[in-house]
Amino acid sequence: MNYSMIRYTLGMLLLFESVFFALPLICAVVYWESAFFAFLIAALISAGLGLLLSMKKPERTELYARDGFVIVSLSWIAISLFGALPFFFSGAADSFIDALFETVSGFTTTGASIFTEVEPLPRSVLLWRSFTHWIGGMGVLVFVMAFLPLSGGQNMHIMRAESPGPEVSKLVPRVKHTAIILYVIYFALTVIMIVTLLCSGMKFFDAVNTAFSTAGTGGFGFKNDSCASFPAHQQIIITVFMLVFSINFNSYYLVLKLKFKDAFNSEIKAFILVVLAAITVVTVNISSMFESVWDALRHAAFTVASLISTTGFSTENFDLWPELSRTVLVIIMFIGACAGSTGGGIKVSRILILFKGMARELRTLVHPRQVKKITIDSRPVDREVTRSVNAYIATFILVFVVSLIALSFEDRDLITNFTAVTSTINNVGPGLGGVGPASNFAAFSPFSKLVLIFDMLAGRLELFPMLVLFYPGTYKKS
Amino acid sequence: MNYSMIRYTLGMLLLFESVFFALPLICAVVYWESAFFAFLIAALISAGLGLLLSMKKPERTELYARDGFVIVSLSWIAISLFGALPFFFSGAADSFIDALFETVSGFTTTGASIFTEVEPLPRSVLLWRSFTHWIGGMGVLVFVMAFLPLSGGQNMHIMRAESPGPEVSKLVPRVKHTAIILYVIYFALTVIMIVTLLCSGMKFFDAVNTAFSTAGTGGFGFKNDSCASFPAHQQIIITVFMLVFSINFNSYYLVLKLKFKDAFNSEIKAFILVVLAAITVVTVNISSMFESVWDALRHAAFTVASLISTTGFSTENFDLWPELSRTVLVIIMFIGACAGSTGGGIKVSRILILFKGMARELRTLVHPRQVKKITIDSRPVDREVTRSVNAYIATFILVFVVSLIALSFEDRDLITNFTAVTSTINNVGPGLGGVGPASNFAAFSPFSKLVLIFDMLAGRLELFPMLVLFYPGTYKKS
Repeated sequence: MNYSMIRYTLGMLLLFESVFFALPLICAVVYWESAFFAFLIAALISAGLGLLLSMKKPERTELYARDGFVIVSLSWIAISLFGALPFFFSGAADSFIDALFETVSGFTTTGASIFTEVEPLPRSVLLWRSFTHWIGGMGVLVFVMAFLPLSGGQNMHIMRAESPGPEVSKLVPRVKHTAIILYVIYFALTVIMIVTLLCSGMKFFDAVNTAFSTAGTGGFGFKNDSCASFPAHQQIIITVFMLVFSINFNSYYLVLKLKFKDAFNSEIKAFILVVLAAITVVTVNISSMFESVWDALRHAAFTVASLISTTGFSTENFDLWPELSRTVLVIIMFIGACAGSTGGGIKVSRILILFKGMARELRTLVHPRQVKKITIDSRPVDREVTRSVNAYIATFILVFVVSLIALSFEDRDLITNFTAVTSTINNVGPGLGGVGPASNFAAFSPFSKLVLIFDMLAGRLELFPMLVLFYPGTYKKS
Repeated sequence: MNYSMIRYTLGMLLLFESVFFALPLICAVVYWESAFFAFLIAALISAGLGLLLSMKKPERTELYARDGFVIVSLSWIAISLFGALPFFFSGAADSFIDALFETVSGFTTTGASIFTEVEPLPRSVLLWRSFTHWIGGMGVLVFVMAFLPLSGGQNMHIMRAESPGPEVSKLVPRVKHTAIILYVIYFALTVIMIVTLLCSGMKFFDAVNTAFSTAGTGGFGFKNDSCASFPAHQQIIITVFMLVFSINFNSYYLVLKLKFKDAFNSEIKAFILVVLAAITVVTVNISSMFESVWDALRHAAFTVASLISTTGFSTENFDLWPELSRTVLVIIMFIGACAGSTGGGIKVSRILILFKGMARELRTLVHPRQVKKITIDSRPVDREVTRSVNAYIATFILVFVVSLIALSFEDRDLITNFTAVTSTINNVGPGLGGVGPASNFAAFSPFSKLVLIFDMLAGRLELFPMLVLFYPGTYKKS
């Protein structure tokens, strides 16, 4: 294990975090809020420790696969621990566990909150919440990587551990350049969303906040009722952008390169199909609850987009909708967004590979002599990818079941526990029952909150980096 | 597709079923019940149609894999359709769908009932319910196979499609002999159980009934309260035998051959570990609800044995237990029994392979150059087996999700729907909420009942035979 590289990277990351604090600091100055000092102290602590850790450059810069995993998981833990300081210092959160829960929920773009009311919070704190979504959406390390003394093959380990989806494809030969391209697209789309919201009549602070939370597919809002009190046309804008940020960013690059056919791949087709099907079912199912079909359609589209993109905004308390809609909504929470987007969940491409494996099994059973490889977009899927998708699903089930047992020590109803785990491990935000869109996670015990914090991190980093951290073999010499 | 072999096998099967009706017929004579006529007519219809279908021997006897699957799934549908006749003719069931539900539940050893009260039912009908468990437990076709004009390699297709678990191992070179050995063990264990129950002071009819339901890990009882009113020592006997019938029958054969080390394989070790862990957790969790820890232990052991063996008997209404116990119980319903037993569920060996695949993935991530094969009992697991286990899990999830959506059209709570599907697809019997041990499946709509009937068959036949039936490629020329 290359401990000095781990130390150095964590140091660099904390320096970056102290820079990130500049945004809420400026906001606190503008609105003349006392939370200014909370951010200042947090920034100074991060900067100090960051300088201390990164002072001495590592002599060896080689990274192996396991180093990459450990760096990624420790980085996410570190950025969350220090990102929680302002919530704690400003007195917004009652305890450090609560502050940590909120921060992890932010960086992992989950959007599950421990605040029963967000409207009384200082604006700088609200901005920091949304900003953690934006930072975490694209990955905190992909950003830092550009400043690390790494060669091409080695930062690939980090990129692979941090990027969502079963495969990481380099858009351009150099990993660093790929990361920069993705960040530029991310930044541009966020700016477009802010401008669109401003044109729709939203105030500047609100627009930036909403765009940050939408871009990261996070879901922290600045209203107690999430997006319910927004005018209909703004809800529609948010619906569209939630879907935009659920699509593989590689596709936007391919569109810019005019490679339309490659951009519109089978994952996106499947994603659109699922979204349309879910919206149709939910609209029909809830239509009697609204004055017009259009209202039902608008709320159904918003909710489906919000939950499949794992954003977690709400315009309606879908916990009160009929059973069919609730069931469909829980299912799309698991499906999640496309690989390579900012969205969470299992990812459409994994589900596709799973189903193709099933179809292949049926074919093999019926015609044992015609064994064919699984193909996606006419390309055969590498056997290693199929294997890792299967291992991913098995691990997902295990983490899910263990978390469910851990949560059930508190005597809550099964729906609340089940959807609490569902919504944190898939980085959605709200669930059903006691964690429905009209409720929050404040009432859980500190132990349960720690379990859910683990689930959010495990979900965002796609399980293995967090498990590698606890796997004894990681620290043995190979 | 060898249609004449399919016709012939179905004919033979119906002839067998008409013979099976002899047992309730005798019972009806002994107790002088009018249900006698219902069984007589059913027996005559089955025998008549059976003779008609099996009159002309098929010229070609070759079976391909897909023929095996189609024969197995059609056989189970046929035996259920005709097995439902007595329930319908005797007036015990209100509709044919209800009669069919009860019969499928019987043959698949699920034990989910549409009867709100079973005590008013004629004894012959009660006996037929338990007897369907016993017949279905070991597999209806494994029995018929001995009388079919098949060579060794071909009845293997049928055995593979009907036997539970990821792999079918032949105990002896000839498949027919393997089937006979397994049936002898099954028969012997059932007799031992009947004798034990008689010694414990149970009446003959009750003992036979209970032994049939336990041996098949079915769960149909003859009391409205299942096993709650049995004396404690009888409940303990049933607990032990539910576990006995959850263990791979191959192991009993190996014990008889004095190969103790081979008999006590890692699947059985894992099974025992899970059972002990579950009993411990539940006992501690429910201890305050009972007068003594022993009472808590007895009920915990009974319930865990009942649900992991997927029998479904109950001594207590575990739907009222605390959340931790309920969660653990739902999880063990999914795990299920050992492969090659009469129990249902996903099967311990599949779960083992899944976890080993996960551990292998972790190892591969940390030390990419040390790629090792998955081994179980020091033998490498065939890659085809791993692949088919993964396909099985994917298919299981798909069937589960589709069923859940189908059920949610009726506006019931999610727990009822979720555990109704859980308990039918795993062939358990009772679930939680509206289908808890104190409730039944009568209230579902005919459509929902059909969905659950499909789930019970799919669960018992381990998904693929039922899906092959609906897969268009099955009927195409290869």
